[in-house]
Amino acid sequence: MTEVRTLKVALLGCGNVGAQVARILIDDAEALAARTGAQLLLSGIAVRNIDSPRDVELPRELFTTDAETLVKDADLVIELMGGIEPARSLIVTAIQNGAGVVTGNKALLAQDGPRLYEEADKAGVQLSYEAAVAGAIPIIRPIRDSLSGDRITRVLGIVNGTTNYILDQMDSTGAQFADALAEAQRLGYAEADPTADIEGHDAAAKAAILASLAFHTRFALENVYCEGITKVSAADIAAAKDAGFVIKLLAIAEKVQNSVHGNGGEGISVRVHPTLLPREHPLAAVRGAFNAVFVEAENAGELMFYGQGAGGTPTASAVLGDLVSAARRLVLGGPARTETTTGHVPALPIAASSTSYYIGLDVADQPGVLAKIAHIFAEHGVSIEIMRQTIHRDAESQAESAELRIITHRASEAALAATVEAVKGLEIINSVTSVLRVEGV
Amino acid sequence: MTEVRTLKVALLGCGNVGAQVARILIDDAEALAARTGAQLLLSGIAVRNIDSPRDVELPRELFTTDAETLVKDADLVIELMGGIEPARSLIVTAIQNGAGVVTGNKALLAQDGPRLYEEADKAGVQLSYEAAVAGAIPIIRPIRDSLSGDRITRVLGIVNGTTNYILDQMDSTGAQFADALAEAQRLGYAEADPTADIEGHDAAAKAAILASLAFHTRFALENVYCEGITKVSAADIAAAKDAGFVIKLLAIAEKVQNSVHGNGGEGISVRVHPTLLPREHPLAAVRGAFNAVFVEAENAGELMFYGQGAGGTPTASAVLGDLVSAARRLVLGGPARTETTTGHVPALPIAASSTSYYIGLDVADQPGVLAKIAHIFAEHGVSIEIMRQTIHRDAESQAESAELRIITHRASEAALAATVEAVKGLEIINSVTSVLRVEGV
Repeated sequence: MTEVRTLKVALLGCGNVGAQVARILIDDAEALAARTGAQLLLSGIAVRNIDSPRDVELPRELFTTDAETLVKDADLVIELMGGIEPARSLIVTAIQNGAGVVTGNKALLAQDGPRLYEEADKAGVQLSYEAAVAGAIPIIRPIRDSLSGDRITRVLGIVNGTTNYILDQMDSTGAQFADALAEAQRLGYAEADPTADIEGHDAAAKAAILASLAFHTRFALENVYCEGITKVSAADIAAAKDAGFVIKLLAIAEKVQNSVHGNGGEGISVRVHPTLLPREHPLAAVRGAFNAVFVEAENAGELMFYGQGAGGTPTASAVLGDLVSAARRLVLGGPARTETTTGHVPALPIAASSTSYYIGLDVADQPGVLAKIAHIFAEHGVSIEIMRQTIHRDAESQAESAELRIITHRASEAALAATVEAVKGLEIINSVTSVLRVEGV
Repeated sequence: MTEVRTLKVALLGCGNVGAQVARILIDDAEALAARTGAQLLLSGIAVRNIDSPRDVELPRELFTTDAETLVKDADLVIELMGGIEPARSLIVTAIQNGAGVVTGNKALLAQDGPRLYEEADKAGVQLSYEAAVAGAIPIIRPIRDSLSGDRITRVLGIVNGTTNYILDQMDSTGAQFADALAEAQRLGYAEADPTADIEGHDAAAKAAILASLAFHTRFALENVYCEGITKVSAADIAAAKDAGFVIKLLAIAEKVQNSVHGNGGEGISVRVHPTLLPREHPLAAVRGAFNAVFVEAENAGELMFYGQGAGGTPTASAVLGDLVSAARRLVLGGPARTETTTGHVPALPIAASSTSYYIGLDVADQPGVLAKIAHIFAEHGVSIEIMRQTIHRDAESQAESAELRIITHRASEAALAATVEAVKGLEIINSVTSVLRVEGV
């Protein structure tokens, strides 16, 4: 029998995901050795506080507060600390030492991905991050490798389970946003400070990573337009439902005509916002805290990848998949799978993107209202697909008011914004109750 | 500027998929060169008859009937001829010459995959086959690589678009099988001779490939139990619908207790049969000719991969993805990604598998019928989950008959078969109208 090589694995961080990764490394050592051809030895776990309670019981002697020393002695480094520093410096140290790095740190990748990929390229080491987007769902390899002979035109992702849970609750129970959020917090689907989720920041980081992969160009967080779900009302949800739609927070990256830089070429619009989707769209059926990424490619057509987007054990599965690949490379040799960025497509501002829109208006119940509004839309070059008026009568005062719901054909953000401004100026308009983007029509 | 290396690509077969692969190789040469670091030169297309009509107009000088010579001069070989011979011999020749091979030949892989993987391992060349299962859907890399640190427990796949289209039509229109098949043939979703699809043979080949990947053991077609959809009646579909189910032809590979070989270990049940799925199951929403593969893993939980399972252009996307990977390996060096078969889990016969069952019975409308039937189920150790009786009265004769629908808890095939036999022997039973397996409950 040949001697089996041992690879030292340093784990940085022991939260939800880290604890499960440690457990699997210990419990499944034999299976992992069979798959990689090497013994994966968990050489230590760097944490801030050794005495913090953990989800999994782990040998105390594995813990250390000296991450730097642990990293310098490792063949493979798993970074699950989150945040920018010291995660970034430790990853750079690992790369410079020639260690393969596996990370789930979406915030760091969205901010500094380009520089880290470059460092890894230079050092010829593999930097893997399947766990950073959509938890357990295999999405990095399919986009980067399986679709490498195709041209992706659009990616639509439900990549934040907290907001999907909240919107799903609002849709199925009619709850207001604040109540659905409170319920999500009670059940552990939302954190005590839910800002990063409900304001869309978490989804925006993932959008930057997905866009970079799909369009072979390095996009960072500052290229992503971001709008959260805090302004989505129960009335919006009800109106959407009534019209055959569901509201989802989508991370979108799509190829569009570059109308901004005036070179007539293509650009990429990367954005996160609440979006109406037809109920028969495959993403509409993604319920609760699940995630899914919908990809459109020129040849492959429509694809969807679905699964658990968070949680310690599912995310640990993605980390381990990356670790096995990195270990196999160390055992068998061969080049690191680096991030090729052959494209240099510019990121376009939200003003350059175009979608369909849903507009809700509270209008005076007078003859000629529809004609006046339709006229303003036409003036601004925004074509109306559906216009529906509902008359409400107040039970006490018997006063009538009318609600107007409009779905437009694809229009530019700029044209739509100008249209809404002009509509607001009409005397017959009591208020613009909602303006939401629509996909999949 | 450094000289860009040229890689000669031989294409074997120019049907639906082959013609699209040739088109993309020519039209997207620049993008493919940027992704691989090499010029991919389509050096020739081997066909049986040069004058056959093709979907795509291609330079006549590319065509040859001498596949052997073409293969011997190629760096990369794409085999899309289908069938066993001469495809097998040509692939072996390519492997022995050190060429990377990409194939979409599920029948060949299901029959001779083990031998071909071994040949490729020995020669250190890559044998890729993403296009062989579920067309455009990236499924091979996710199962083989992304989930390599996890343990898959079950794979459920809708991997045949023809049968999914037929069952979907029967479900939405109430059509009988024969009419839905005729409609599918008229629309080009089913072939003139639909046997391979409707009898489940095509799905069985894919089941063998999926099972081999998921359980790190080489399974062949003879390990797959196979039952097609020809006996599924409009009445079955209606009854399923009524009970909140949809009927899908599933390719199933799952880990089960090995009750056959008596070593108490695990075995794998690989099978294809019509299956009742709850309407809220993610696979239930897979409509028309689409495909999807649902994967359950110990850590990742439930995952689903969805997309177009057939068609020239979508399948070509999968072929090109494999080709880019194989070309990158030739350019950058490194070991071939061979098929590790670290597991040696035995394939179990259908008798060893267990599922829930749906049983439809036409019974006499007499007191005590339910008790008698329930007694027989209990005697055979088959536990009933739901039992529902519907009374029909014939409009003319006023004679009453009763229909009994039973859904069992998980039971072994053997126990179920014995139960059905015993039930058939009861005087109060007019007929057993259907026995169908149920998943996802």
